[in-house]
Amino acid sequence: MPADDPPDHQETAMLHRLIYSSQVAAPMSPDTIEALLAQARTANARRDITGALAFDSQHFLQVLEGSGEALNRLYAALMHDARHRDLRLIDFRAVEQRSFDQWSMAFAAADGRTGRICRRHSASSRLDPAAVTATAALQILQDMAALPAPAAVA
Amino acid sequence: MPADDPPDHQETAMLHRLIYSSQVAAPMSPDTIEALLAQARTANARRDITGALAFDSQHFLQVLEGSGEALNRLYAALMHDARHRDLRLIDFRAVEQRSFDQWSMAFAAADGRTGRICRRHSASSRLDPAAVTATAALQILQDMAALPAPAAVA
Amino acid sequence: MPADDPPDHQETAMLHRLIYSSQVAAPMSPDTIEALLAQARTANARRDITGALAFDSQHFLQVLEGSGEALNRLYAALMHDARHRDLRLIDFRAVEQRSFDQWSMAFAAADGRTGRICRRHSASSRLDPAAVTATAALQILQDMAALPAPAAVA
Amino acid sequence: MPADDPPDHQETAMLHRLIYSSQVAAPMSPDTIEALLAQARTANARRDITGALAFDSQHFLQVLEGSGEALNRLYAALMHDARHRDLRLIDFRAVEQRSFDQWSMAFAAADGRTGRICRRHSASSRLDPAAVTATAALQILQDMAALPAPAAVA
Amino acid sequence: MPADDPPDHQETAMLHRLIYSSQVAAPMSPDTIEALLAQARTANARRDITGALAFDSQHFLQVLEGSGEALNRLYAALMHDARHRDLRLIDFRAVEQRSFDQWSMAFAAADGRTGRICRRHSASSRLDPAAVTATAALQILQDMAALPAPAAVA
Amino acid sequence: MPADDPPDHQETAMLHRLIYSSQVAAPMSPDTIEALLAQARTANARRDITGALAFDSQHFLQVLEGSGEALNRLYAALMHDARHRDLRLIDFRAVEQRSFDQWSMAFAAADGRTGRICRRHSASSRLDPAAVTATAALQILQDMAALPAPAAVA
Amino acid sequence: MPADDPPDHQETAMLHRLIYSSQVAAPMSPDTIEALLAQARTANARRDITGALAFDSQHFLQVLEGSGEALNRLYAALMHDARHRDLRLIDFRAVEQRSFDQWSMAFAAADGRTGRICRRHSASSRLDPAAVTATAALQILQDMAALPAPAAVA
Amino acid sequence: MPADDPPDHQETAMLHRLIYSSQVAAPMSPDTIEALLAQARTANARRDITGALAFDSQHFLQVLEGSGEALNRLYAALMHDARHRDLRLIDFRAVEQRSFDQWSMAFAAADGRTGRICRRHSASSRLDPAAVTATAALQILQDMAALPAPAAVA
Amino acid sequence: MPADDPPDHQETAMLHRLIYSSQVAAPMSPDTIEALLAQARTANARRDITGALAFDSQHFLQVLEGSGEALNRLYAALMHDARHRDLRLIDFRAVEQRSFDQWSMAFAAADGRTGRICRRHSASSRLDPAAVTATAALQILQDMAALPAPAAVA
Amino acid sequence: MPADDPPDHQETAMLHRLIYSSQVAAPMSPDTIEALLAQARTANARRDITGALAFDSQHFLQVLEGSGEALNRLYAALMHDARHRDLRLIDFRAVEQRSFDQWSMAFAAADGRTGRICRRHSASSRLDPAAVTATAALQILQDMAALPAPAAVA
Repeated sequence: MPADDPPDHQETAMLHRLIYSSQVAAPMSPDTIEALLAQARTANARRDITGALAFDSQHFLQVLEGSGEALNRLYAALMHDARHRDLRLIDFRAVEQRSFDQWSMAFAAADGRTGRICRRHSASSRLDPAAVTATAALQILQDMAALPAPAAVA
Repeated sequence: MPADDPPDHQETAMLHRLIYSSQVAAPMSPDTIEALLAQARTANARRDITGALAFDSQHFLQVLEGSGEALNRLYAALMHDARHRDLRLIDFRAVEQRSFDQWSMAFAAADGRTGRICRRHSASSRLDPAAVTATAALQILQDMAALPAPAAVA
Repeated sequence: MPADDPPDHQETAMLHRLIYSSQVAAPMSPDTIEALLAQARTANARRDITGALAFDSQHFLQVLEGSGEALNRLYAALMHDARHRDLRLIDFRAVEQRSFDQWSMAFAAADGRTGRICRRHSASSRLDPAAVTATAALQILQDMAALPAPAAVA
Repeated sequence: MPADDPPDHQETAMLHRLIYSSQVAAPMSPDTIEALLAQARTANARRDITGALAFDSQHFLQVLEGSGEALNRLYAALMHDARHRDLRLIDFRAVEQRSFDQWSMAFAAADGRTGRICRRHSASSRLDPAAVTATAALQILQDMAALPAPAAVA
Repeated sequence: MPADDPPDHQETAMLHRLIYSSQVAAPMSPDTIEALLAQARTANARRDITGALAFDSQHFLQVLEGSGEALNRLYAALMHDARHRDLRLIDFRAVEQRSFDQWSMAFAAADGRTGRICRRHSASSRLDPAAVTATAALQILQDMAALPAPAAVA
Repeated sequence: MPADDPPDHQETAMLHRLIYSSQVAAPMSPDTIEALLAQARTANARRDITGALAFDSQHFLQVLEGSGEALNRLYAALMHDARHRDLRLIDFRAVEQRSFDQWSMAFAAADGRTGRICRRHSASSRLDPAAVTATAALQILQDMAALPAPAAVA
Repeated sequence: MPADDPPDHQETAMLHRLIYSSQVAAPMSPDTIEALLAQARTANARRDITGALAFDSQHFLQVLEGSGEALNRLYAALMHDARHRDLRLIDFRAVEQRSFDQWSMAFAAADGRTGRICRRHSASSRLDPAAVTATAALQILQDMAALPAPAAVA
Repeated sequence: MPADDPPDHQETAMLHRLIYSSQVAAPMSPDTIEALLAQARTANARRDITGALAFDSQHFLQVLEGSGEALNRLYAALMHDARHRDLRLIDFRAVEQRSFDQWSMAFAAADGRTGRICRRHSASSRLDPAAVTATAALQILQDMAALPAPAAVA
Repeated sequence: MPADDPPDHQETAMLHRLIYSSQVAAPMSPDTIEALLAQARTANARRDITGALAFDSQHFLQVLEGSGEALNRLYAALMHDARHRDLRLIDFRAVEQRSFDQWSMAFAAADGRTGRICRRHSASSRLDPAAVTATAALQILQDMAALPAPAAVA
Repeated sequence: MPADDPPDHQETAMLHRLIYSSQVAAPMSPDTIEALLAQARTANARRDITGALAFDSQHFLQVLEGSGEALNRLYAALMHDARHRDLRLIDFRAVEQRSFDQWSMAFAAADGRTGRICRRHSASSRLDPAAVTATAALQILQDMAALPAPAAVA
């Protein structure tokens, strides 16, 4: 453990939830998305991070659950990730329990079914992370994750 | 985008719900109603507006859900629509979630079944928009939209 | 009473509250504002309308309290008032009690003191009606109306 | 406004609150602290950011209130600020109203009086940002800001 | 409409609920009861009044739902109805929704099954209107109306 | 005790509150009003009835508190009182405690001060019993009764 | 009705619930218990008293529901009943509704199944009336009464 | 400690509150009342029983606070006290805290001031224990105990 | 009963719940664990103690329910039990009802299924007693005890 | 730091509150008490432990606030402290804020004033730790600590 990482970060070891949005820096092929997801699933499983990701070829909307420390590290890494642009933190707080304890990383491409989900919780049927509240963002991601057959990569 | 429509209308982009009533300016044939509904459904779907409409050959009672800006524009247009008379705003507020996310525009002509719905939530079995509270208006429209076989145009 | 104004508008006789914002169509001199306020106060007193108005030389933010019918008429008139542009309804609902029962129309021009009030309830110290929720708009107007020496016309 | 900064970031214009802690990268002289504070006050006043800062020569604990967008920019800048080490986000959420609307940036050095404040809301009389919950951090900063004679720079 | 019945009784047009009890002025044959019920059902349906009636050969306990005005008229008529003695108002208030929207007038003669219902909500297994609270009276009438096969006239 | 007044009316002995309105059958001189009030105060004190009365030369709005039985008797008598026309029951229910335990019968003529009270709780500054809810009626009567110098008979 | 039993006991006619415990004065044979229960069931049915009784050969724990007057009489009688020793009142209060409206007098001997019920709501698997709160006593008796096959007399 | 008083009555050692009423068996002179009170104060202080007593020459209304065991003993003794007739238990329950911790035994004779207290919480200005709920009885006794100069024995 | 164990420990006879964690002093073979569990089950059944135990070869996390006195004795004994190291009390309080009334002592070794349970309620999929709140510890133990086939000793 | 004290005990660093009682092992002179208090105050201040202690020459009742870890250590030490006998844990839980943040150790010897405090929250005017709930124990200690002139050592 590096010297600047003291051993007694108590509160930061507790369970937290982070919601953020970003824009895709460059068009991503289905293969790129698949690779990004596979990489995230592996890394997150190792750090006990769970969550869900929505993607509509332009925006990412993502919820992440894990220790405060793990989420701080991950968010700092995302800030330097060239695939994301205009990263925006939407909400970060300690939570009593995970909402996505079953997925290492759920994935939902914005399509017809997801359009209806966006419209249910916001004024638009498009995925517009900047126009949703934290509550709506969380509900959109939960409704997407609950879709019977999760949307495939388009 | 016209000059008088500034780019930063944040709150007005959030989800709102509008309830209003009006009187029919002139008797409407089933064909006229059908045309009015078809037109509304197309326009509303394009602007992500959902809702429900009740009609008893004399009054309209309608709930509309969408962005604050889209509802403001639509209500201003209704004020100049020659088919409506005595337009009355009943309620307008920001909401967390839509109540009619499945319909571009649900429709119920007042018949026997809808009479019982009106009576359940108000003092009358007729559709009397001026005698109902906003809560009752919303419940009447929700109960009508939930009817197994939606009432046809008479 | 005109024919299109039926005698039995019960619910609309109950107490309601309307909040809206608008932009100033053309620069207004202090005299113009004074005239506008004097006219509003007289008309409102006659119709038992109370409320408050905030003004920052560019925007109006106003809350109005009165019968549903009186507020519907007033808002329809505002829609045709050449002094207002980009009229936007923020909130309209039945209320149990007035919040501004002492004023025919309280008035606050935006100055240093009102900047702090705006900042308290929103992300900005400027009067930006489009960026405030209905709750914040109401609190801003209440705090302004409670200022010891009400802001004069600039 | 740069091209990657779209004009319609609605939700991010709403009022948010951010709490974070950090460690001092290198010992800071009273003059350095004063300079840092003066700079922060000016910059924050321009962006309508308010808040409070606690400092005990080793840690910073800070709450910031402002638009979601302004707080995102400021936090990103702090991540690259060489004076902070081990930056840790504690809480970020939309709020209805500011808790610190009176300060551009309050300042409280951790001393005898502040030790009692820390002890009231946590298990320690020292400022240990990593061992406090978000609620406790906010209460500690509010109690410090309410001290009759604010603690001077030691 | 008679002159003493002004056209603008707004609040009285809203939905209300009235509960009263009375004593039978003279023994009633099953035919008399049937006639009384048939008459009530017809009159109530015309005025959009719903409700339920319990009868144990000595007492009536009745709940009525409808407009404040319709219930005021009906109660005034009952005061002059020779079949009722010792009429006692138990409760009258505005309600949001009807509890008996399916019946023009549900009816339950007190028998074995209704004895258990009375005992559940009061200290007695007999129908003793004077010993029940308004809440208990309403629950007794609701439980009676929900009996699978409504009690016949004895 | 007369035969039709059984000794075991338990619930009706509990504390209730009755609110009603009426119209003045014929113009009343101040002397007539004074006589009516004096008579009511004596009779009510004897039956432990308290309450308040508002009068604006056209309408009465009155709240009465006492046993269910006493209020039933009083209301039946009012129905046959030639001084009242268009008697309308607004609310009747059991209450835990009196709101007017200090007055045998407060009196407030509707004047300038009472106009502001009416406007505070309703859409009108005139005493319009038919347009107020039971809650508003009670608050209007309580605010009138709390006026420092009670309004005299005009 | 005896002279010391005035006709106007209103509140005492309302529904109350009484919980008490006692010790068995002398060992009771199954026949004695059966006789005691049969006698209680007949007397209680006549007075509209319902409830449940738990017995473990040493203690009685009983809940009784009925009018305040009937329960007062029954408890006074129990105080002179030679079969009970060390009678202890646990709780007595007015209730809105009965919890045991189906039984004239349920009975549960403390056996294996009832031991688990006692343990669920208290620190002991034995029936120890003196160590349970009123809430626990009521829950124990409700759980015992809900046993599929009620415990027989041992 | 007698044999029938087992050492492990845990719950009964917790704090309880008992409310009862009774009728005076025979007219009591002021001296008799004084003697009764003096005796009660001494005995209650020894057993840590507190409370208040209202008396109107016909009825007693009394609240007692202490351990469940002490109150059970005292109530059993009252049942055999020749000075009380028609003893009626009104309420008995465990409480978190005493309402009368300052008095060993407050005393209020029912006079003019106490008449107003009775009327505030019940339908009558006389002390009618049988017509009050437990809540009203407690409030009447608390209001009487709070009278600035407690009523003397008449 | 020894002299220092007075007979009147009332509150301590009420139902309490204790949660603690410890570290395994030395590696335990499956046989040792089995023996420890068998011993605990027998001793706990005798004292009416129920609960659940989680074990991951390094840590114990245990919840115990019973009388305050029994839990105090058991915890004092655990403090001298050589098999436990670093015993840490997590929570101790009076409870209304048991959560584990069905088990004498449930047992769950931390394996794949239990890893998901830990992760659901905490930031880690390992059993880390020191990083969980009392609420999370209780939920982890309840979810483990509810596993269809309880985890066997590895 | 010893080897068996791992560096990552996060939750145990959070603020907790512990309440316990004990019996005095041997009579304590005022000097002994003074010495015990002085020692406790010094040790507690060093470990950021606050609280209050009540003493009646036979029992101690004490509340302690501090980190979970510090309280665990202190309670383990008390278990081996020869001055305490029959140590009983009453309550232990995480708390949001301290109740005794002003005292290193408030102290109240049981005297006349404290007797009234004990009686207010329990069935006895003596300090009987075994007969009070955790809530009552905390309230007794808070009321004692709030006494204007704290009770001296007797």
